[in-house]
Amino acid sequence: MTLIVLNFKTYRESTGEQAIRLAEICEDIANDYSVKMVVVPQVADISVISKAVRIPVFAQHVDGVGYGGFTGHITAASLKEAGATGSLINHSERRLKLADIDESITACRKAGLKMIICTNNVATTRACAALEPDYVAVEPPELIGSGIPVSKADPDIVTNSVKAVKNIAPKVGVLCGAGITHGEDLKSALELGTEGVLLASGIIKAKDQRKALEDLVTGAH
Amino acid sequence: MTLIVLNFKTYRESTGEQAIRLAEICEDIANDYSVKMVVVPQVADISVISKAVRIPVFAQHVDGVGYGGFTGHITAASLKEAGATGSLINHSERRLKLADIDESITACRKAGLKMIICTNNVATTRACAALEPDYVAVEPPELIGSGIPVSKADPDIVTNSVKAVKNIAPKVGVLCGAGITHGEDLKSALELGTEGVLLASGIIKAKDQRKALEDLVTGAH
Amino acid sequence: MTLIVLNFKTYRESTGEQAIRLAEICEDIANDYSVKMVVVPQVADISVISKAVRIPVFAQHVDGVGYGGFTGHITAASLKEAGATGSLINHSERRLKLADIDESITACRKAGLKMIICTNNVATTRACAALEPDYVAVEPPELIGSGIPVSKADPDIVTNSVKAVKNIAPKVGVLCGAGITHGEDLKSALELGTEGVLLASGIIKAKDQRKALEDLVTGAH
Amino acid sequence: MTLIVLNFKTYRESTGEQAIRLAEICEDIANDYSVKMVVVPQVADISVISKAVRIPVFAQHVDGVGYGGFTGHITAASLKEAGATGSLINHSERRLKLADIDESITACRKAGLKMIICTNNVATTRACAALEPDYVAVEPPELIGSGIPVSKADPDIVTNSVKAVKNIAPKVGVLCGAGITHGEDLKSALELGTEGVLLASGIIKAKDQRKALEDLVTGAH
Repeated sequence: MTLIVLNFKTYRESTGEQAIRLAEICEDIANDYSVKMVVVPQVADISVISKAVRIPVFAQHVDGVGYGGFTGHITAASLKEAGATGSLINHSERRLKLADIDESITACRKAGLKMIICTNNVATTRACAALEPDYVAVEPPELIGSGIPVSKADPDIVTNSVKAVKNIAPKVGVLCGAGITHGEDLKSALELGTEGVLLASGIIKAKDQRKALEDLVTGAH
Repeated sequence: MTLIVLNFKTYRESTGEQAIRLAEICEDIANDYSVKMVVVPQVADISVISKAVRIPVFAQHVDGVGYGGFTGHITAASLKEAGATGSLINHSERRLKLADIDESITACRKAGLKMIICTNNVATTRACAALEPDYVAVEPPELIGSGIPVSKADPDIVTNSVKAVKNIAPKVGVLCGAGITHGEDLKSALELGTEGVLLASGIIKAKDQRKALEDLVTGAH
Repeated sequence: MTLIVLNFKTYRESTGEQAIRLAEICEDIANDYSVKMVVVPQVADISVISKAVRIPVFAQHVDGVGYGGFTGHITAASLKEAGATGSLINHSERRLKLADIDESITACRKAGLKMIICTNNVATTRACAALEPDYVAVEPPELIGSGIPVSKADPDIVTNSVKAVKNIAPKVGVLCGAGITHGEDLKSALELGTEGVLLASGIIKAKDQRKALEDLVTGAH
Repeated sequence: MTLIVLNFKTYRESTGEQAIRLAEICEDIANDYSVKMVVVPQVADISVISKAVRIPVFAQHVDGVGYGGFTGHITAASLKEAGATGSLINHSERRLKLADIDESITACRKAGLKMIICTNNVATTRACAALEPDYVAVEPPELIGSGIPVSKADPDIVTNSVKAVKNIAPKVGVLCGAGITHGEDLKSALELGTEGVLLASGIIKAKDQRKALEDLVTGAH
């Protein structure tokens, strides 16, 4: 089943009350169109949203630290208890040290959270596949928020990422992101060998978020 | 009125369900003993706790970014909407770049959040006072979690911080922290010129958190 | 005497052999026009340049660590032994945590190095003045490398920085930077109360670096 | 031929004048005992040392940025021009973001510098091997500077790192480090499948650095 991960980032249109409404729209889309949707709100919104919807709720970032004296850090344990079932790690807007990516993955495994590691090119995709997360999501930073879909602008980065992951760690799923907005973008992402997409502004900043999501999923067939 | 700020850090005893219970204990203490208490839980716990208690709920960290493409960041807007009324900034376990402290303060002012900037010595206390936050909390890092109260181990750092702040920005309140556990620690902190204390493990790791807080506030007189 | 600090950054025109030639030009200008010039090459070029010229050679960055196990760090001791007599700290392109600025200043004092702390606005200028370095250099990041001089685009940030520093720590000198290229830029910087300027691309990327420097210093009168 | 990489860190005994003497000792050892030695001094010492000895001189860190506005960064171009022929990347005391490790590798390739990426466990060794540097050097952080050799304390981390690298990128050489001091440590490191060792305090803090190096290389046979 196609996987669509919607990163809420810190947009006004996906914060607080509006985040709850957007998550509910995503749940409707998942039910109506038989796609797997994951919502990725800000940490402060996770507990409310995880009570409001039954689709998976992921965090946008998780630190690799455990219980203890780690003021200001986001722990896997706190995310889990708030209702999250997974997390993005190393998003282009929140890049991590390699050793910290490794520790975040370990913390997620221990807490039973799924993880999607974001990467910026084929080399870092290879490196992250070697860490054996659930998913790698490759996103060329220059296309993020651009409206120019990676699946059109740079299909090679997607197919080479898929190849690299299959060579190193075949169980790791591959997503792609950056500029994904329309059904045809999703369609070509799937044709290039990914299991789905990671997207954000194309949906969140749309005049009609529900319609934008419907266009995305119906246009992919 | 004496101000007692309890930093929940990421201890097991102050995460999720246990964070709610601890916040309720703090509320009881505030009501029973006429002290001002602020609870500082992890971000994922803020929305639930701010509904459970009426005392102020602060975040442990806030980023200086606004609405937009800032995946994995903690925005003042999301904290405010979740019910927080303030935030720690630059805690010793989550130190920030100077320019980012300035941006976090600006973001808090805009969102109507109070801010407590943590500092590690008299020089950085002077520097942070110049940024005119609501409070500066001086905590020598080597005493944090040590059980040795700063007010005994290094009273000069407290009195010199109070002096420095009064010279540069007299409206800024001064707290002290690190090793504060017992009533006498709080008492000497107040005698040294502070408006209260920032504390954590001494209470959170206590066998009986309520009793530890009662001892703290009753022993100060 | 007017102070002109030339930051070599990592431009091709100011790396290695070309850095030596540029430093020699700066020395000629200092001698011919009775201005005080400081050159700020990359660390790898400091030892050669400090043997080639007699004007002060500063580093672009210094870490606050001492002798010991600090692989990859730039220590005040190594800079001093290589011939540097000072360092920039917290440049906009190499921002530091507040606690690390404080430690870098302490390390410079101990090694006998002068320090110029870079700041990005009036608030951070106030904060850095409170740390009592030799100089604060205020540079609005959006004007760096723009060719639009801060002294024209935002004279208030300069005069307010001068005022703030004089209030908090009158012994601290004030420089300004960002977009400074021509003699009139330097002239207005001095008229706004600074002791000189911090500049880079306007000189380094000039077709004729010597002529650009001559224009700068002769045009200021 | 066995490869011995001596990280000078920022010890007093390997800074400035003392760094030159130590590099000369290393050159003598390389000549007298037919081992390949690489010296890794602080950046400020590279140009002088690379003129004083003919053995390879590596930097302790290199940033992934090129020519331009990157104040305070260490560029591959400046290292090359100062006489370095390679660099450590991501040492445990100077950990980097994954994307920055990738950029540092790219910068080294472009400048013709060799690279040794340091890793802290088998997982990060796998990840770094996927980036195809010249060498990976695995060093458990808790053993660094301990005097307890990794080859004895945790031989599995070494053999599993060698296996992982051979699977993913067989051309990448493997070194190990942390606690390596004596000939027997080097001997067991080689027996576990590495091409050599990365070491520091065991030699640098020795009463007689020359004798310590002689003991290391003669004791390995």
